Amino acid sequence: MDELTHFNDQNRAKMVDVTDKKITSRFAVATGKIKMHPETLNRIHEGKIKKGDVLAVAQIAGIMAAKQTSSLIPMCHLIPLTGVDIHFEDDNDTTITVTTKVKTKHVTGVEIEAILAAQTALLTIYDMCKAIDRGMLITDVHLVEKDGGKSGHFTY
Amino acid sequence: MDELTHFNDQNRAKMVDVTDKKITSRFAVATGKIKMHPETLNRIHEGKIKKGDVLAVAQIAGIMAAKQTSSLIPMCHLIPLTGVDIHFEDDNDTTITVTTKVKTKHVTGVEIEAILAAQTALLTIYDMCKAIDRGMLITDVHLVEKDGGKSGHFTY
Amino acid sequence: MDELTHFNDQNRAKMVDVTDKKITSRFAVATGKIKMHPETLNRIHEGKIKKGDVLAVAQIAGIMAAKQTSSLIPMCHLIPLTGVDIHFEDDNDTTITVTTKVKTKHVTGVEIEAILAAQTALLTIYDMCKAIDRGMLITDVHLVEKDGGKSGHFTY
Amino acid sequence: MDELTHFNDQNRAKMVDVTDKKITSRFAVATGKIKMHPETLNRIHEGKIKKGDVLAVAQIAGIMAAKQTSSLIPMCHLIPLTGVDIHFEDDNDTTITVTTKVKTKHVTGVEIEAILAAQTALLTIYDMCKAIDRGMLITDVHLVEKDGGKSGHFTY
Amino acid sequence: MDELTHFNDQNRAKMVDVTDKKITSRFAVATGKIKMHPETLNRIHEGKIKKGDVLAVAQIAGIMAAKQTSSLIPMCHLIPLTGVDIHFEDDNDTTITVTTKVKTKHVTGVEIEAILAAQTALLTIYDMCKAIDRGMLITDVHLVEKDGGKSGHFTY
Amino acid sequence: MDELTHFNDQNRAKMVDVTDKKITSRFAVATGKIKMHPETLNRIHEGKIKKGDVLAVAQIAGIMAAKQTSSLIPMCHLIPLTGVDIHFEDDNDTTITVTTKVKTKHVTGVEIEAILAAQTALLTIYDMCKAIDRGMLITDVHLVEKDGGKSGHFTY
Repeated sequence: MDELTHFNDQNRAKMVDVTDKKITSRFAVATGKIKMHPETLNRIHEGKIKKGDVLAVAQIAGIMAAKQTSSLIPMCHLIPLTGVDIHFEDDNDTTITVTTKVKTKHVTGVEIEAILAAQTALLTIYDMCKAIDRGMLITDVHLVEKDGGKSGHFTY
Repeated sequence: MDELTHFNDQNRAKMVDVTDKKITSRFAVATGKIKMHPETLNRIHEGKIKKGDVLAVAQIAGIMAAKQTSSLIPMCHLIPLTGVDIHFEDDNDTTITVTTKVKTKHVTGVEIEAILAAQTALLTIYDMCKAIDRGMLITDVHLVEKDGGKSGHFTY
Repeated sequence: MDELTHFNDQNRAKMVDVTDKKITSRFAVATGKIKMHPETLNRIHEGKIKKGDVLAVAQIAGIMAAKQTSSLIPMCHLIPLTGVDIHFEDDNDTTITVTTKVKTKHVTGVEIEAILAAQTALLTIYDMCKAIDRGMLITDVHLVEKDGGKSGHFTY
Repeated sequence: MDELTHFNDQNRAKMVDVTDKKITSRFAVATGKIKMHPETLNRIHEGKIKKGDVLAVAQIAGIMAAKQTSSLIPMCHLIPLTGVDIHFEDDNDTTITVTTKVKTKHVTGVEIEAILAAQTALLTIYDMCKAIDRGMLITDVHLVEKDGGKSGHFTY
Repeated sequence: MDELTHFNDQNRAKMVDVTDKKITSRFAVATGKIKMHPETLNRIHEGKIKKGDVLAVAQIAGIMAAKQTSSLIPMCHLIPLTGVDIHFEDDNDTTITVTTKVKTKHVTGVEIEAILAAQTALLTIYDMCKAIDRGMLITDVHLVEKDGGKSGHFTY
Repeated sequence: MDELTHFNDQNRAKMVDVTDKKITSRFAVATGKIKMHPETLNRIHEGKIKKGDVLAVAQIAGIMAAKQTSSLIPMCHLIPLTGVDIHFEDDNDTTITVTTKVKTKHVTGVEIEAILAAQTALLTIYDMCKAIDRGMLITDVHLVEKDGGKSGHFTY
């Protein structure tokens, strides 16, 4: 196991020096779930047709959040992202799964960007539906896969 | 069950009109977990003494994120928060639980602020430790309790 | 005609002192248009059904921009908005009109917030469609109506 | 006509994948107008000498807004800009025209950045003068010219 | 001497709970200096007439920064400011002094806002002139006076 | 002495055109001090052990601020930073000195980023301790060293 790399010689946090790392194509895929009352999920799907589209708002929130990663996560480098895409699917009649894919061509990876996009999309679903279901649960959020850079390929 | 309130008469998203709601004291408590290798959790605790303090960074990230809620979650109102506090504890040798408490005196509640603070603290732990453990899992994120406002008291 | 109120005794810009102004309910309505090839407008409407919803993205962008007004317009006060709503309609086969309504209960008005929401929604339409029509024109952006505060009611 | 490229296979918005596009020098020029009472324009020009400089504030607002483009326009990539310049001129005794030029060396163009800079400069003029003239009109905002990248040269 | 109030029972940072504090009118005045080559100061003053206005840019930067205080300083509450004003004067042929005044009607004070406005105005002067004088010194930055709230009046 | 480069042919501010500058490895080191009552400094050090860690908050604030430089300083280019590190030491029983080091591989330097990190770390110390010592003084803030780029090496 490697050392934790985010601390300096005063044992304080630093932004890791990546000046000499190579620019390579990188991507990361993350996922997460939100569980709710079947009635809530029903409303979301009806909504898409009749009342408005909860998932469209969640999609945009996730994409925009990915671009704010370095403002929110203290030791993250700013990374100009080259692509962000988000998909939703129902697991069953109580669960929506979000899958995010983030790409870049840069010296560091975009794992945090992908997870943040997933978290934000899920929280936006919560926000849009909380008036009818405050007990929703956000769960199983993790990196699915990443590639590019020195540490190479990872699958969960 | 109430209607989804975030859509207008064109079935598009809107920021709900709260102009005539009463200002009251409100709080929300949220929680979430991050699961990791026992070795990773060990390093975090050692780190607190010898190498730096992962949870101190996560704490600050969570507090600062709570203040950015209305920038990240599309239909959230800007709420001047009157207090944010965050606690961490170990569940067992593989899990850290975060608990956040957010307070305000305003026309809408701070559930989303509390959950976002929890999510961001957990993702910061992931970011600080990902070099040694990319397979960490963020899970069981939910509102624990809220009070204040027309919808009254809620516990999960 | 009143004096320009945004300058100090060194003839430099300042944020106008509103400390002693009264909190009142206020709203502002703004509008603007984007003109395009009939084919582009056609695609937007088809898109709503078959390919995705340009106006849903524009709607969310406009609402989120309204919340960023004080970060973008140098002398604007931060105003906690109590509601934002946006509507789109076709004028004819080449023009979409956006109408925004912003509300607050505060010491200053939300005219700039309403216009910024309109401008951002229109620019988002441009961005989403520029691959097929770079010659779109954003035009006729103005305040339609505002009410509340010392200066009272205004209609264009 | 090309396809609208901002939608994924679920017909939802995505940030277009530009990972494999070439880095080239690019620029975009945009323009827009604000129409007002002749007395207002008069005050702006007097102001420059006696009371403060409305256009100096508008200039800075426009430049700073160009840097925020990817935070405001949902599907825009973050682009490190290499230059931003803004000019104002009077068309006649009721109209100020703004012209913006934005440059980069990147994989995507800066059309949106140039238009956003123009819109923000114009809205700042409105904000600085609204106490004396709420009926100002922002109009004729469009891309003037762009160059660089696969789609090549464009003039309005 | 009072306790440091920014730490919780886990000895970690928190945003202090101000839910029950009274809303009162408050202001804070801060100051700071930047020292430079006499030739640099000369250029700034010439610039005002012939080439552009360094202090106009610094003024706007300071005002806009005051509005971002809660995003930058981790434990600061978001405070809707009711006024910001900034003045510059020469101390002698090598020094510019900035004085900032920030006002609010809120539950907490605006000392940090006033100091941040001063620091940002001074750093903007540095940025605008660094091509001709990298050795400038920012110094003597402090709160001058504040009033309002439980802790009452303070002068340096 | 070179010309002030931040003004255009209308004598207004612009973001300098760096499109054709070469990408090189660059760094900047900055410093600054905060002076306080000996009792305050004592509390900070005690705090590290018993009550919480003021400098840990200041460290993170400084690093996060460096990433926001182009949002705060009007004519600064956005620069993807490749590393940020911050150290604190006591000069004597009334003074903490901060030293920041910022790195990038880009077309412009990071002097402003380094100074802003120092200023923000110092202001965060002020904020965390102001309840016990409002008379703290931030002073001696300057660039210490920079390297890389056409202007080459500089030491204060």
